[in-house]
Amino acid sequence: MTPYIKEHKDRFLAELFDLLRIPSVSTDVTYQPDINKAAAFIAHQLNEAGADKVEVCQTAGNPVVYGEKIIDPKLPTVLVYGHYDVQPADPIDLWDTPPFEPTLKDNKIYARGASDDKGQMYMHVKAFESMMKNNTLACNVKFMIEGEEEIGSVNLGQFINERKANLDADVILISDTGMISIDTPSITVGLRGLSYMEIELTGPNRDLHSGMYGGAVQNPLNAMAEVVASLKDADGHITIPGFYDKVEILSDEDRAKMAKAPFSLDDYKKALAIEKEFGEKGYSTNERTSIRPTLDVNGMWGGYTGEGAKTVIPSKAYAKISMRLVPHQSWEEISEIFTKHIESIVPDGILVKVTTHHGGTPVVIPTNSTEFKAASNAYAEAFDGKEPIPVRSGGSIPIVALFKEELGLDSIMMGFGLDSDAIHSPNEKFGVDNFLKGIETIELFYKHYAAIK
Amino acid sequence: MTPYIKEHKDRFLAELFDLLRIPSVSTDVTYQPDINKAAAFIAHQLNEAGADKVEVCQTAGNPVVYGEKIIDPKLPTVLVYGHYDVQPADPIDLWDTPPFEPTLKDNKIYARGASDDKGQMYMHVKAFESMMKNNTLACNVKFMIEGEEEIGSVNLGQFINERKANLDADVILISDTGMISIDTPSITVGLRGLSYMEIELTGPNRDLHSGMYGGAVQNPLNAMAEVVASLKDADGHITIPGFYDKVEILSDEDRAKMAKAPFSLDDYKKALAIEKEFGEKGYSTNERTSIRPTLDVNGMWGGYTGEGAKTVIPSKAYAKISMRLVPHQSWEEISEIFTKHIESIVPDGILVKVTTHHGGTPVVIPTNSTEFKAASNAYAEAFDGKEPIPVRSGGSIPIVALFKEELGLDSIMMGFGLDSDAIHSPNEKFGVDNFLKGIETIELFYKHYAAIK
Repeated sequence: MTPYIKEHKDRFLAELFDLLRIPSVSTDVTYQPDINKAAAFIAHQLNEAGADKVEVCQTAGNPVVYGEKIIDPKLPTVLVYGHYDVQPADPIDLWDTPPFEPTLKDNKIYARGASDDKGQMYMHVKAFESMMKNNTLACNVKFMIEGEEEIGSVNLGQFINERKANLDADVILISDTGMISIDTPSITVGLRGLSYMEIELTGPNRDLHSGMYGGAVQNPLNAMAEVVASLKDADGHITIPGFYDKVEILSDEDRAKMAKAPFSLDDYKKALAIEKEFGEKGYSTNERTSIRPTLDVNGMWGGYTGEGAKTVIPSKAYAKISMRLVPHQSWEEISEIFTKHIESIVPDGILVKVTTHHGGTPVVIPTNSTEFKAASNAYAEAFDGKEPIPVRSGGSIPIVALFKEELGLDSIMMGFGLDSDAIHSPNEKFGVDNFLKGIETIELFYKHYAAIK
Repeated sequence: MTPYIKEHKDRFLAELFDLLRIPSVSTDVTYQPDINKAAAFIAHQLNEAGADKVEVCQTAGNPVVYGEKIIDPKLPTVLVYGHYDVQPADPIDLWDTPPFEPTLKDNKIYARGASDDKGQMYMHVKAFESMMKNNTLACNVKFMIEGEEEIGSVNLGQFINERKANLDADVILISDTGMISIDTPSITVGLRGLSYMEIELTGPNRDLHSGMYGGAVQNPLNAMAEVVASLKDADGHITIPGFYDKVEILSDEDRAKMAKAPFSLDDYKKALAIEKEFGEKGYSTNERTSIRPTLDVNGMWGGYTGEGAKTVIPSKAYAKISMRLVPHQSWEEISEIFTKHIESIVPDGILVKVTTHHGGTPVVIPTNSTEFKAASNAYAEAFDGKEPIPVRSGGSIPIVALFKEELGLDSIMMGFGLDSDAIHSPNEKFGVDNFLKGIETIELFYKHYAAIK
C-alpha cells in the first residue's frame, strides 16, 4: 500500500459509504432523484480530486458524468469507464443489513453496489486523486461514468457519438469484473453478450373461476410453463432453431489452457448449497459460464401469488428471459429468432407478445497488446511478481463492444471483485483489501503504460 | 314478485350493499376485523328477521353464525347454509368500480361477493323475514352461515361435530351455485371436488448473477416450468400416475342427456375473447367442466417481477396448483399421489417442498328425492311452469360432502347466479332480478316441501 493510500484510506471509505447510501437503482423510475444525486456526487469528487471540465452530461436517460486531466497531449490518454447505477435490492428481506446502509463486517463492505460497480468505479477516482496529489500522473485521463449500465446502457451510444472528439483516447480502463482470488490476480479478456426478453401470454379476457372453467380453456400459466420448458432439452441444449449457428468454437488447446485456472467444483457446489451442478452436456462448469451461451428465466409470474389459496385461472402470464451470448452471436439476431420461435410455439387459445428489454454484444480482448502488457506489469508489481491470468467472464458489459465499434478502442478490464461478492444478490459485498489493492494497481497501470507506450 | 318483496326490495338491496362494503376476505389474515364485522352483521339481520338463539359461534378459525326458528317439531326442518367470506379482489386495477363499494349498473350489483356468496346467502335471510312477517313460514328453519368457504371450510367439520344435536334437520338448502339463465332455471346436482397444492422449489441458496452463473446451475424457474409442463400431455390428459384410476365413467345415455342443455361454444369463446377452447381430448366443453377432473396453475412466481430487467437466477420458485375432482376420486389420495409425483420428477440440483392447502370431496345429488321434487315444484311455480334442468357444476362446495358424511343429509343447491357473474374475477356482479327471483323461489320451496314431506 502506498503511503498516501495508507494515510487517507479511512476518508476514501467514508466517501464510498456516502455514495453507497444513495439508492441509485436504474431499472425503477421511482429512484430517479437518487440517480441524479449519485451523478452529482461523482462530479463533486472528480472536481475535488483535481479533474478539469467536470460535467454532469444530460442524455435522453440518466446523466453521464465526465471529467478529464490533460497534462500533455503527447502522452497517452486513458479513458476510464464505470457506472454509478445499481441493481434493485430485492428480495430485501434476505439482506442481513440494510442494502443502502453500508456496513463494515470482517473488513468487507456490505451494500448494494459495493462491488458492482460503485466500489470498483471509485477506486479510479481515488487513484486519480492520489496521482494528482503526489504529482505522479503519467498519462492524460478522461472519466466517463454512466448511470444506465444495469439497464443496458441504452443512451450511452448516442452520448459517445455526439462527443467522439472529447472521448478520443488510447485505451479504455474498466473495473467492473472480478479476479480469481485476492492472491491470484486475473484480467478479464472475454465477456458474454446478452439478449434480455419478456414474454406476455394472454388467455381469457379476464381472470376466471378455476372450477367453472377449469379444463375447458387454455390457462396462460400452464401455457407459459410449456413454452419455457420447451426452450431447453434434457442435455441442457437450447432448442431455438439457429441459436448455436454462429457460436465461436474454441480449439482443444484453448480449452485445455482454460482448464488450468484453479477451480474446485466441490467448493462451488458447497458455496451454493446445491447437490448437483447443471448445464450443457459436454462442457465443464467454467466453460458453461464463459465460452458457451445460455438461457435463464430471470422472473416469471401470474395469477394469485399471495397468502393462502385463490381458485383462479388468470388472464395473463409473464416471463423475463435472458440469454447470455458468446463471440460471433449477434444479440439483435438472437432476439429476433427468439421472438419468432416463441410466437411459433405458443399453444392455441393463447395470445403472445414478446418484447426486447436490451442486448449486448459479446467481446474478446487481445492479450498481445501494449495495453494488456501494461496492465499485466501493473499486477505483477502489485502482487509480488504474480502475472495475472487471462480469464473469460460469464457476465456482460455491453459497452465494451460499443467502445470498440464507436471509438475503435479495446478495453482493459482490471476487475478486483470476487465471485463471493454476491453482486445482483442480497448481501452484496466488496473487500476493503480489494478496494485498496485496486487503487494501488490502477496507479501502477498509468506508470507502466506511460513507460512502454 | 310477492307484494312484500316489491314493497321492501329497496331496503333489501340497501342492507345487502352494507354487507358487500365489508371486505371479509378469508384467505388474508389482514382482513380479520372485517370477517368479524360481517359475522356480526348477519347475526343482527337474523335477529331482526325474527330468528331465535342467534349466536356468533367462535371456532378455531372464523366464526359461524347460527340462528333458528322452530315453529313445530313435527314439521320438517330446513338447514340453510351459506358463507359471508369472499375471494380476494385482486387484480384490483381490473375492476371498473371499487370491489368493496357496491355499484348498481343496468340493474346488476357490482361488488366482490355480490354473487359468491353474500348476495345469494342473503336471499335466504330475506325470504325468512318475508315468511315471518307474513306468517307463511311452513317449516322449521336453521341457519348456519360460515366464514371459511373460500379457504376450504377448514373448521366447519369440527363445528358440525360439536353441535350435531342442534343441527339436526331434514334437508340442507344452499344458494352458492348458478342457473343456466334467468329464463332457464336449473338445479345443481353435481359438484367437483378439489385438491389445492403448493410447490416450492429451491435451487442455489441465494439469488445469483445470471451472467456469472448462467448455464452452470439449475434455475428453479426453468425447473418449475419443466415440472408444471410435464403434468399434462398434448391431449390435455393429466400425466400423474393413478390420477384417473377412480374417475366415475358416465354412460352414453347420461352424456347424451347432459348434451341437451342449451350451450353455444361460439358464445362461450366470444365471452372469453379466446380463438380456441382447450381441454381433454374426447370430451365436450361442458363435460370438461363437469364430469372430468382437471389441473390448473392458479399462481406461479419467482425471480424479478418488477419493472424493467434484472439479470438474476433466483434461489426459489413457487406455484399454486389446484385439481378439480369428480365422483369416486378422494382428494386426500390425489393430494398424496400429486406430492409423490412432483417429488419424483424434480430435476437434480433442486430441492422441493409440496404442501396441501385444502381439499374437497366431489358429490352427486339424487334427483328422485322428496327434497329435489319440492325444489323442482318451487322453480316451476316461480318460472311460469318451467321445470328446472338438473346440471353438474364444475365448482366445488366441499361442505356438501361433509354434510352427507356428518349429518347424513343431502343438499339442495338452488343457485341463482349466472356464468357471467364473474365470481372470483374482477367486476363480480349479481342481477337484481336474480336476487329477487331467488327470494321468491326460496319461499316457494318451504311451501312445497311442507306440502309433500
